Amino acid sequence: VQRITIDPDRIQGDRLTLDRSQERYLTKVIRLKVGDRFQAIDGRGKLYLAQLDLDGAIVLEVTEILTPDLPFEITLILAVPKGNGFDDTIRMCAELGATKILPVTTDRTQLTPNQNKIARWQKIAEEAAEQSERSRITVIHESIPVMDVFNGSIFGDDKYICEARGKLPHLLDCLPAQQPAQKTNSPHHFTVAIGPEGGWSDRELQTASNNQFQPVSIGSTILRAITAPIVVMSLLTGFYRS
Amino acid sequence: VQRITIDPDRIQGDRLTLDRSQERYLTKVIRLKVGDRFQAIDGRGKLYLAQLDLDGAIVLEVTEILTPDLPFEITLILAVPKGNGFDDTIRMCAELGATKILPVTTDRTQLTPNQNKIARWQKIAEEAAEQSERSRITVIHESIPVMDVFNGSIFGDDKYICEARGKLPHLLDCLPAQQPAQKTNSPHHFTVAIGPEGGWSDRELQTASNNQFQPVSIGSTILRAITAPIVVMSLLTGFYRS
Repeated sequence: VQRITIDPDRIQGDRLTLDRSQERYLTKVIRLKVGDRFQAIDGRGKLYLAQLDLDGAIVLEVTEILTPDLPFEITLILAVPKGNGFDDTIRMCAELGATKILPVTTDRTQLTPNQNKIARWQKIAEEAAEQSERSRITVIHESIPVMDVFNGSIFGDDKYICEARGKLPHLLDCLPAQQPAQKTNSPHHFTVAIGPEGGWSDRELQTASNNQFQPVSIGSTILRAITAPIVVMSLLTGFYRS
Repeated sequence: VQRITIDPDRIQGDRLTLDRSQERYLTKVIRLKVGDRFQAIDGRGKLYLAQLDLDGAIVLEVTEILTPDLPFEITLILAVPKGNGFDDTIRMCAELGATKILPVTTDRTQLTPNQNKIARWQKIAEEAAEQSERSRITVIHESIPVMDVFNGSIFGDDKYICEARGKLPHLLDCLPAQQPAQKTNSPHHFTVAIGPEGGWSDRELQTASNNQFQPVSIGSTILRAITAPIVVMSLLTGFYRS
């Protein structure tokens, strides 16, 4: 059964209204006909079994998604490495429940993914959400220079920048000891920036630090840029295990 | 500069004795000549810059390896998944300092890697150790049925089996709260078994449990078999951060 993602407000009673691109996708791309069934997830923990009819779809069944959403959000700011390894990083971070991934160019890595690549990564994130039965899908942001991120207003209640050099406190020793309380409509938000293989430049570190990014270590191990984000996701979700 | 791995007892003063396969590798495969330089790591934290001469090599320089060894050992017992994703799992677990990886067949996964594949994984582990400047190289064991592992005597002071089903305690809540003291010549040894996508069979879980493997969860997330080992390595090394 094919699955699409919908806004929760598209469900009214047992009716599911489709937007034009969803309708096109279901009828033209995967060629469903009236009476055919599909699944829709609403990004809030619900999975709908729906049946296509003449003006949208009727909801046949509602189930709760298996993997509970994290009680907080995580944005990863990631320098894009060369090669294809980043695909796996995105898939694993999506499995682990990252809210948003922001690919960035840095002083030492100028790789700017084009729209096709962003779309491919988004697709990978959707597959991962489906496979892990997650209701929330990791959003892949378009690439921007990291200095714009550090200088601009990036969302986040607690912001960290990982750095291998120097004697820095460990991320796990810098997180709030108690899991931050969930606020209505805006869960606590962690933002973690992970640099390129060559490390951040001094001006990047300085600018991040000036903008409330706390420099942290994620261990004395030398990790590749494609491994470190998975470690960060494992540490954060493990620390606030429920 | 090419790098080989040597036993520490092959260094005597400033002399490095090569065994036949190393000599063959250096002179026939990468075609070094007398006077050419190479690096050797001894698995104990030392990196030697050496120069080939007529009966072995002379040590020109000794340096300490950057990434400190973990103060404990970790054996991962892993069901081998289909596809090539396992290569990345091995690389990342090696980066994170796994001591040994034991690929196993299970009731639900019968994939038996042949000798070539084991050799390739060992090569990947060596590359990862080099890249992460680790002195210890993750050993890739040959594949055996997991029931033989559970029934036999598998080394480990603390043994865990990860299982997604059921309400199990989290791995982090089962580890010894204090980092176990390092014993001379035999560091504390953790063993963690991670099952296939379909989960362990009941008899596997039962046998493991009968043999002092504690069933644990690594979070409520549904993870792929190639992601879970990296999460386990991140959790273990993060928990006992120094």
